[in-house]
Amino acid sequence: MERLRSLEELIDALKRLPGVGSKSAERMAFALLNFQQEDLDDLATKISEIKKKIHPCPICGLYTENAVCSICSNLDRTDDLIIVVAKPNDIIGFEQLANFNGRYHVLGGLVGATSLTKISDLNIDSLIERINKEKTKEIIIATNPNIEGETTALYIAKLLEDIPVKVTRIGYGVSMGSQIDYVDSLTLHKSLESRKEIK
Amino acid sequence: MERLRSLEELIDALKRLPGVGSKSAERMAFALLNFQQEDLDDLATKISEIKKKIHPCPICGLYTENAVCSICSNLDRTDDLIIVVAKPNDIIGFEQLANFNGRYHVLGGLVGATSLTKISDLNIDSLIERINKEKTKEIIIATNPNIEGETTALYIAKLLEDIPVKVTRIGYGVSMGSQIDYVDSLTLHKSLESRKEIK
Repeated sequence: MERLRSLEELIDALKRLPGVGSKSAERMAFALLNFQQEDLDDLATKISEIKKKIHPCPICGLYTENAVCSICSNLDRTDDLIIVVAKPNDIIGFEQLANFNGRYHVLGGLVGATSLTKISDLNIDSLIERINKEKTKEIIIATNPNIEGETTALYIAKLLEDIPVKVTRIGYGVSMGSQIDYVDSLTLHKSLESRKEIK
Repeated sequence: MERLRSLEELIDALKRLPGVGSKSAERMAFALLNFQQEDLDDLATKISEIKKKIHPCPICGLYTENAVCSICSNLDRTDDLIIVVAKPNDIIGFEQLANFNGRYHVLGGLVGATSLTKISDLNIDSLIERINKEKTKEIIIATNPNIEGETTALYIAKLLEDIPVKVTRIGYGVSMGSQIDYVDSLTLHKSLESRKEIK
């Protein structure tokens, strides 16, 4: 069969997207061949221009189309409490909570054995700056409950040692709605450690 | 949280790709935000230009970067036998067979109850033209073994009724390497119908 170099190149480029392997990149490329040219141009333009339209908020690191993101520019929110996350979409769940009125800080990654990110790559200097400037009372570290998340949390706690701010870590335990017989033993162990008296 | 319209628009555009739902389009969009601008431009250009570089072969309908595809322009292959498929990538498996030296014809779709394609949308006129011109001896219809594939095969057989060409359909039965206890009953039924004497 004829070798279609332009198709192979498109497939290779599509494979750089997360969750896209050879087979799905191939399916996508063949699907694109059936698109109208204007739809191809539309998708191409959106890809090419996304970083020109959206950029990280200079204060917290969340994505924004404006000079400062809507959370940092919201005067009804407080700097007393800042939730620290690894990446922008980690805040989605917290934003759905009715009772959180603080702000966020995006680290831009996690450090640890399997991560290529270095501690100096993380937005920690800007976090310290914010804490000092806004007299923040508490930092809640909401990185993933795995080795990288833990390592990063401990690093940050260490770096903030001499700064007058409370540093907390999100609680561990069984997820709401989960089934006890399916929960892994490490989570059960954590759920015992974090048990609370109810009578 | 701030509504990022340009990101939403990119996500909507990515969702038009096959197998990409809301969640994976979102992951892809966030990943694209971390690409270098030159990689974004590279992907965008490849998407936008794919249809300018690749087009269906005017004879058989396979994709090609040349005037005529490599199979149709290969003088060592015969027009005596043409395998008819629904779409270009359906030929991949047949091309891996050592003993097939015929050519292909791409219908460009299938007709049937759940398909929006009409029989007039399929490349059947060009198939008839080829058969007449090349004195093709046999057409093997290799559409999917499902309702659309069957319906289309029967339609083509009907349309070729008055043309002196043999029309065959690929055989049905259990897949090589499958486990009998996992094979569906319709396939087993077909495997009994297509049984062969071995002693």
